[in-house]
Parts: sequence; structure tokens; C-alpha cells
Amino acid sequence: MAEADELRDDVSLLPEQGSRRQIITTDTLVEGVHFLSDDPLETVGQKLVRVNVSDILAKGALPTAALFNLTWPKGRSEEDLRSLIAGLGQSIPSQFSLIGGDTTSTNGPMVLSLTLIGECLGAGPVRRSGASVGDDIWVTGTIGDAYLGLKVRLGELASDEALVRAYHIPQIPDFLIARCVSEFANASVDVSDGLLADIGHIAEVSGLRAELVQDDVPLSEAARRILTNDATNIGMIDLLGGGDDYQTLFTAAVGKRVDIETFGAENGLKMTRIGRMVEGTGVALFDPSGNPVNFLTTGWQH
Amino acid sequence: MAEADELRDDVSLLPEQGSRRQIITTDTLVEGVHFLSDDPLETVGQKLVRVNVSDILAKGALPTAALFNLTWPKGRSEEDLRSLIAGLGQSIPSQFSLIGGDTTSTNGPMVLSLTLIGECLGAGPVRRSGASVGDDIWVTGTIGDAYLGLKVRLGELASDEALVRAYHIPQIPDFLIARCVSEFANASVDVSDGLLADIGHIAEVSGLRAELVQDDVPLSEAARRILTNDATNIGMIDLLGGGDDYQTLFTAAVGKRVDIETFGAENGLKMTRIGRMVEGTGVALFDPSGNPVNFLTTGWQH
Repeated sequence: MAEADELRDDVSLLPEQGSRRQIITTDTLVEGVHFLSDDPLETVGQKLVRVNVSDILAKGALPTAALFNLTWPKGRSEEDLRSLIAGLGQSIPSQFSLIGGDTTSTNGPMVLSLTLIGECLGAGPVRRSGASVGDDIWVTGTIGDAYLGLKVRLGELASDEALVRAYHIPQIPDFLIARCVSEFANASVDVSDGLLADIGHIAEVSGLRAELVQDDVPLSEAARRILTNDATNIGMIDLLGGGDDYQTLFTAAVGKRVDIETFGAENGLKMTRIGRMVEGTGVALFDPSGNPVNFLTTGWQH
Repeated sequence: MAEADELRDDVSLLPEQGSRRQIITTDTLVEGVHFLSDDPLETVGQKLVRVNVSDILAKGALPTAALFNLTWPKGRSEEDLRSLIAGLGQSIPSQFSLIGGDTTSTNGPMVLSLTLIGECLGAGPVRRSGASVGDDIWVTGTIGDAYLGLKVRLGELASDEALVRAYHIPQIPDFLIARCVSEFANASVDVSDGLLADIGHIAEVSGLRAELVQDDVPLSEAARRILTNDATNIGMIDLLGGGDDYQTLFTAAVGKRVDIETFGAENGLKMTRIGRMVEGTGVALFDPSGNPVNFLTTGWQH
């Protein structure tokens, strides 16, 4: 794996490997940019852990150890700090431990970085670049809830606690998804930039085209209600472009379809087939009549 | 190694090891706290790398890979960014590569974190806790120059370019020190909090007492000139308590004395014997007459 490729993925292989390959990822959250100053810090702590765990799981790996860099504003209370740490603790399950970090203070906004190490379950991390022609495209959970939660938080949609919660605390899939990805997936990524953008990443680095069936994308009941309410002016494209879902998006050979469905059923893991990889470039989205849907405005192309 | 021990050291063992153990360390620099807003960013970039490299070398390991978390103030120029990156590049030698990171923006001060992975040359990292009774205490390079450089920078001392440079760009020892530590040292740490504080850390976690001979501590010509100038009101204790030296401070059995001297001579590595470890607790400092020197004010005890 060339260094340039490493920089284009969410995780980085540690240069020296034991029998199982170890990967590492890091994400920074900045107050006023990635969370609002009056967001409950307990949920910010949970978010920090989950956005990193999401990266590791999507590669077919399990998190083993974390480092935490805390840059704490001088004026904030000890109670706020306890709240943040409690949030971290809630989302750091017994499977992995905090092994290091650095604590500093600042006169500016809070800055939080988590660096997470993971151990691959299979031969290596499942990359974005491994998709093959004919692969099914799968996604876990539901899409769009975090986007809608932010809209609620900003007062643009009627109050809905579950959606706000999905925005504050990324609803990552169960850790079992790592085993599924490791065993069955050819390419995989977590949905952080938005479903269209992230399948676009897979298509681009795999040298293929992704075709998605709009109505197959799994939505929550709340999201479906909002979509069918004309007054909200929110469409499917908004949900597919919204981001912050932190679900796992992967491609797998058609021959693995039954295995994946069985794995999902046996482990209570919601996985939905939403399209396929074909020759070509870019991302195409089809409506129920099989007509392409225009989504030039979502800005996934770069 | 228990988790609590990991958190008390500068580096963290990666949970899974190949034939050689890998370690990881991280340090954050905050604008206005660890560097001044008008410090040249090229030197800030160099400092960020060197404070982390210093940790890895002091453990008898060589750096192999880094992750860089950049939180960039919205108002700063592209030229400033280029300057910072140039500084990072200058201090990231060909031995290791940047494998990942995260870039974010902020309305507040700049926050920079580097996470550095290292590979141990010997059986494992040389810990703070391994000192034995009778061990010699050794230190590389010279002590106090960065402290004096800060005084110059703040206008409290007459201009001296070399001292300011030692403050801006930590004068870490040559990478060869890792081999020396790995082969000969029982305990080791880098001097970041100040010589007295850092030998205090070794003494505390090794359950021993450190005895230092004040006049044996190596000083630069510039530092010696300032010490002998009564007008400056700066004493030896200030240099020993000052910090930011980023030299390697280690203990080794008396039987290794010749080996270490030979290693230093053959490799052009300045290493000075400055004391020994004995039964007891805390740190004692002796003047040329063998009388203890009081340094209650340096605050290393915690």
C-alpha cells in the first residue's frame, strides 16, 4: 500500500504488523465547528469516540486502544469536564482502553482529538478501493436521521427527541459489523460525508460507477414521516447528501448475498441492499420508475 | 504493564506486537500557550515534531510513522500554513512518514497535535520505572538553553540568537541515542518538565532517590556566561528547573560506564554523568563542597 493511498483512506496501517494487521485513525472535533457551544458535553464525548469507532468498524477491524488529546478552555467548569469524560467513558466499551493522550489549556474554543487503534479481523483492512464490477452495495441502519436532527436542533423542523439524539450521538452499527465486513466485503467506508459522497469515494478509488436505487435506501419512521410532509420542504436527496450517519457502507459480490442476509438475521444487524457497482465513473441514482435522479447540488464530486 | 502505568509514561505500547514492540506518543501545542502568536510557524512545526521524537528516542525506540491533527484559525494566511508545513517537513526525516491525520478549522487559536509511532530497538521500551540502586544518571547535550532562550524572547535577557533558537527548535539528541538507551539504560525519560522534575519522575516511579552533582550538569558556553554574570540574577537552579531541554536523561549500571563513554565517543554523542540513584525518595542536589542545595521552589514535587 503506497503512502498516497494511506492518506486517501480513513485509517492508516501501522508500519509494522504482528499476525493481525493493526490500523489507526484520528478525528478532531472543534467547538463552534463540529459541535455547538451549548451542546451537552456528555454527547460530545460520545460523538468523539463514535466517529472514530465508526472508521475502524467499517474497515473490518475492532478498536483496541485510544489516545485522547484534550484542549480545554480556561473558563469552563469542572462539572463540564466531568460531563465530557462521562460521555467518553460511556462510549469506550470494555473492548478497548485509553492508553495515552495529552491535556492542554486554551483561551479559545475546545478542541478534542481521539486517535484510535484497531485490529483487523481478516487478512487486512477492507479498503475503499476494492469494489468489483457487479458488486452489491449495502448499508447498515438508516440514513438521514442525523441530518434531520440537526435541522430540529437549528429550529428548522418540529421537535423530535430521537432525531436530535441521532445527531448528537452517532448511531454506529453493532461491533459485529466488523466481522461481516471482514468476511464478505470487497470495499467499505463509513458514511460521514453523506451517502452519495461516500459511495462516490468508493466508486472513484475503485475506478467504477455506483448505481443506487433511491427508494431502497433505508429510512427511519421519523424520516419517512418528514419526507411525506410537503410542508417541510425536505427531499430524499437532502437525506442522501446530509452526512453524519456513521453507518457502514460496503460492496460485496452477488455470491455473498445469502451469507450477508443470514449474518444480519442471525445477529440482529440491519443491512440493506441499495444498489450495485458497474463499469464507468461517478454515482447514478434511480427513482422507482428507473429514471435517473439529478443531484448535482449535493457536491459530492471533487 | 498495567494500564495505570501506561498513563504515567510518555509513550504507550500498542496492544498487539510484532517481533519488535511498537510504541505511540502524542503531544499538543496550543497557540498562546505553548508558542507565541508571532513565533515563526516554521519553528513551531519543527518543535511539534521534535517534542514527540524526543519521547520516542528516550525510550530506546526510533520513530516510524506520524499522524498530524491540524486545527487552523480561519483568519491565518496560506503563507503561514506553508511555513508551518515546511517546518514539519524539515523535522520529519526520511526515517518516518506521515500516515494520517485530520484537518479542521477554528475561530480561535491554532491547535496542533502530533501522534508518533516508534519501534523499539531492544526487547521493549525503556521505562521511567527501571532504575536500580547504584545506577549512574546520564544526560545528553546541554541543559538550560531553551529556558534562557525564552528569557531572551521575553526581553529579560540580552539578545542571543543561539539561545532563542534552542527555545524555538528543541535541540534533541541524534537518533543514535535510541541505540544507546536500548542497549545500556535501566530507566529513561526526555527532559521536558525540567531536569529536576524529570529525574524526580524516574526516582518516584522507581521507588528510589536521585542524587545530582550540580556542577556536573553540562551547560553551553552561553549559559555559563550568563550564570557567571551577576547582573542577570539567573542561577543554576533556574536552568535545572526550566524545562524544554528535550535531551535524554537515563540511568545505567556502573558496569556500563565504559560502554556508554565509548558509544558516545565513537558516535560524537555528548553524554555526561551527573549523579546516581540511591535508596530513599526524592531528589537531592549537591554543591561542589558536597553540601545539599535547597531547591524547594522548583515545584517538581507533586
